[in-house]
Amino acid sequence: MRVSVFRQAHFNAAHRLHNPQWSDEKNQQIFGLCNNPSFHGHNYELIVQITGEIDPETGYVIDLKIVKDLIEEEVVRPFDHKNLNIDTDEFRNLNPTAENIAVVIWQKLRRRLDSHLDLSVRLYETPRNFVEYSGA
Amino acid sequence: MRVSVFRQAHFNAAHRLHNPQWSDEKNQQIFGLCNNPSFHGHNYELIVQITGEIDPETGYVIDLKIVKDLIEEEVVRPFDHKNLNIDTDEFRNLNPTAENIAVVIWQKLRRRLDSHLDLSVRLYETPRNFVEYSGA
Amino acid sequence: MRVSVFRQAHFNAAHRLHNPQWSDEKNQQIFGLCNNPSFHGHNYELIVQITGEIDPETGYVIDLKIVKDLIEEEVVRPFDHKNLNIDTDEFRNLNPTAENIAVVIWQKLRRRLDSHLDLSVRLYETPRNFVEYSGA
Amino acid sequence: MRVSVFRQAHFNAAHRLHNPQWSDEKNQQIFGLCNNPSFHGHNYELIVQITGEIDPETGYVIDLKIVKDLIEEEVVRPFDHKNLNIDTDEFRNLNPTAENIAVVIWQKLRRRLDSHLDLSVRLYETPRNFVEYSGA
Amino acid sequence: MRVSVFRQAHFNAAHRLHNPQWSDEKNQQIFGLCNNPSFHGHNYELIVQITGEIDPETGYVIDLKIVKDLIEEEVVRPFDHKNLNIDTDEFRNLNPTAENIAVVIWQKLRRRLDSHLDLSVRLYETPRNFVEYSGA
Amino acid sequence: MRVSVFRQAHFNAAHRLHNPQWSDEKNQQIFGLCNNPSFHGHNYELIVQITGEIDPETGYVIDLKIVKDLIEEEVVRPFDHKNLNIDTDEFRNLNPTAENIAVVIWQKLRRRLDSHLDLSVRLYETPRNFVEYSGA
Repeated sequence: MRVSVFRQAHFNAAHRLHNPQWSDEKNQQIFGLCNNPSFHGHNYELIVQITGEIDPETGYVIDLKIVKDLIEEEVVRPFDHKNLNIDTDEFRNLNPTAENIAVVIWQKLRRRLDSHLDLSVRLYETPRNFVEYSGA
Repeated sequence: MRVSVFRQAHFNAAHRLHNPQWSDEKNQQIFGLCNNPSFHGHNYELIVQITGEIDPETGYVIDLKIVKDLIEEEVVRPFDHKNLNIDTDEFRNLNPTAENIAVVIWQKLRRRLDSHLDLSVRLYETPRNFVEYSGA
Repeated sequence: MRVSVFRQAHFNAAHRLHNPQWSDEKNQQIFGLCNNPSFHGHNYELIVQITGEIDPETGYVIDLKIVKDLIEEEVVRPFDHKNLNIDTDEFRNLNPTAENIAVVIWQKLRRRLDSHLDLSVRLYETPRNFVEYSGA
Repeated sequence: MRVSVFRQAHFNAAHRLHNPQWSDEKNQQIFGLCNNPSFHGHNYELIVQITGEIDPETGYVIDLKIVKDLIEEEVVRPFDHKNLNIDTDEFRNLNPTAENIAVVIWQKLRRRLDSHLDLSVRLYETPRNFVEYSGA
Repeated sequence: MRVSVFRQAHFNAAHRLHNPQWSDEKNQQIFGLCNNPSFHGHNYELIVQITGEIDPETGYVIDLKIVKDLIEEEVVRPFDHKNLNIDTDEFRNLNPTAENIAVVIWQKLRRRLDSHLDLSVRLYETPRNFVEYSGA
Repeated sequence: MRVSVFRQAHFNAAHRLHNPQWSDEKNQQIFGLCNNPSFHGHNYELIVQITGEIDPETGYVIDLKIVKDLIEEEVVRPFDHKNLNIDTDEFRNLNPTAENIAVVIWQKLRRRLDSHLDLSVRLYETPRNFVEYSGA
């Protein structure tokens, strides 16, 4: 009996989309306003989905307080109120698109979870633009 | 051509997380504030997903008025404005975690639906904590 | 590394559920208030999900500005502020249930996307009633 | 000690913005897509605010079940799944803009409430466009 | 130049509406399901509004971190995951309707704020039922 | 018969809270994470409220398409995907707190509206932190 549990968290960050191997013109053409060299920012909403068996003793797949603390440690503390391009190791050489941020968050959480648990992350860059990665 | 239809409903209930085979200390340690012997409560939001073929005569997978009435009968009437631990048969001996509530709701609805329809239920305990069960 | 990207859009339309091969009585019995011959309407919220590989040069699965423009062209311009039964070719002879609208939108978008991209559409007729179609 | 209580309800309706004293060209110029002669529609969300003293016996300003039933009777039953221009007396000769709908709803509810209670209504035509009327 | 700042918080609690001076029949008749002697519960969403002059040195009316901590201390810690009727002094002899809870929260916060700041609290018992109190 | 009409818009921007007349230590102490010299960012949601008489010919207080275009011109174009501290004249020497941003937006819109219309702006910095300014 596999059940998914979800925990939502959020962080606010600045970023800039940019490919250093392209000319300024091409960056501007592809990334438009998101290429602004002074950066812009977002309220990122993150939904972490963990799937596994219900533990018959607790009735939990995993205690969501543990998930909350894990997200705090791996995502909120390093990314919240940060400039992703400047202040983080992960995006110094990786373009911080929503897709890449979701994959990085997935990788950071994946290595902290038991292997019998499945993981998926959904990341809202705005209420109308969002992405999802499940490790496939 | 299989399409999913979704219907959202809600109910308000009190509950307490507790394992009677554990000491008070262990219950407190594992369930924390949720173990409060006087109970606490939630506005549960339920999303029922039913997947099947579109009936060419109606254009419906299933009439959502039927789904609404089914949820009313199987979930809202027995659980709304109730204390799950005290007032319901299902959770007298089953810890009313979101996971277990979702599984119970799934089982109650499953036996009322035609076998060619797939069923999944998502249950929000709070806007930030939720679970999903698809019978897998 | 397959990632899903989502873009949300909306359109407002009038419609009427009706099967011309049925009597007025049967239409009224099956579709109830939705059969009103003077029409009623909805704010439709559409979520388009596109799944594919991340392009290592852009960090995008697909530029969401392209998806936004595609939705504008294929869905918003033809359906927004329209009467689906009267003003559109698609629903002149197809009952505009949420299920059928989702399938039509999926078909219109599918033929505009590269074959290596997967597509799913979710359509909210109201916040509590919605459908999803993935081409399966 | 005056407290406001709020109750939210919704109805789905078709409408057309049109001034019969204007030419078709002027109607098209002023109302644009909203002038579509085949109608379009919305999910209207209504928030009714009632302000008064707390009754010390009940702890209520007014029982929200009463407010719910009043909205059902005065607003939902006459307007839900209707074409406002065709199916209602109120908008046969009154342009069903959000402003005018809010004023009509306010007037219908006002005459049903005790005079010591204040009334305000907010009406969402879409999540981004809404109006409020307080009888001032 | 007076500006309002708002901070939203939430707490989950059980409660029961009951007037001990009435018969069981009258309590049942007036409060209906909310009179359940085993209690039910809600996710309460609280919005605290504070109005004052902008401090030219900080650009703040009041630091929202201070407001957040104040709400935590005065509202969340004493009420979250509690049974309002049993576990709190405030509602042992006061019916915990949304109206009364809002007034109590307003009074607890009012005595902690400078007198040149205005205060209003909005409390959602459910997304569709809510109240507001401004001390008037 | 004065009615309020509301239009919601959004923009994404980077900013940093900083008082240049203070030491780095004091800035860090007062503004905390918001003082990050590399900036952070937000999805700002703006709600513009305009109050006036209903024009009997149109049924409008003011055409919301006009309000939408005005917000686009005065707020979205200059602030969206910008670094408020670096890329805008308004916040080069004014700390871009939510309070100050709301006042600036109010002033920019106020001078574009007829004097018989009242104006209020609400600005969400996050879903839980927001401000409102009405020119008082």
